[in-house]
Amino acid sequence: MSINNDATRPFQDVRMEGAHQVKMKILIGIPDGSSNIIMRHFEVSPEGHTPRHQHDYEHVVKIEKNKGIFVDALGTEHEVTEGMSLYVEPNTDHQFRNPYDKPFEFLCIIPNPEKNRCC
Amino acid sequence: MSINNDATRPFQDVRMEGAHQVKMKILIGIPDGSSNIIMRHFEVSPEGHTPRHQHDYEHVVKIEKNKGIFVDALGTEHEVTEGMSLYVEPNTDHQFRNPYDKPFEFLCIIPNPEKNRCC
Repeated sequence: MSINNDATRPFQDVRMEGAHQVKMKILIGIPDGSSNIIMRHFEVSPEGHTPRHQHDYEHVVKIEKNKGIFVDALGTEHEVTEGMSLYVEPNTDHQFRNPYDKPFEFLCIIPNPEKNRCC
Repeated sequence: MSINNDATRPFQDVRMEGAHQVKMKILIGIPDGSSNIIMRHFEVSPEGHTPRHQHDYEHVVKIEKNKGIFVDALGTEHEVTEGMSLYVEPNTDHQFRNPYDKPFEFLCIIPNPEKNRCC
């Protein structure tokens, strides 16, 4: 069992190509014993964005604070605000952008990408 | 891709034996296409509690609003407040209680319990 406190965990800059002004911290991960599910907290600063990219695992997202734009596989922009949740399929292009003036914060939950998922 | 709004999804009473004053809604689940990860939102009213129980899948939890008590496998009580996150191993007794005067709200994320998990 682990109990972690978001407030005392530092953000780390996301240095992935195509990311701009994005920070991330892992809230629950493999060091906590969680071998199937990883919960991360992202913050996209005003004018920031994640890479437009895809990968072979899904995203389960909960918007935690303020608002931003989710760009779907077709390039359609959706304003997403605190309280909304998203499901993004594996192998589909996606991006989060923040054209607003407050930090855009969300949880992004993924399966352990180092494991084969069943079925 | 699904975008859901927590605010417009109704809570349902949890009628499981041992649950008292607990409500739940699924934010992202199988109908959204999410076959590995299910994200639920729980609210435990003042004086409410979940069952003290265990099951063969883990919990990844994020406290979203106010505070409550998490009772671990040894029966130790931990006060958990907004911003904290928890990992609860499979097959370990656990319970959430709310002895306070405000609704205790958290996300509880699980793997799809109808699937075998790998490895």
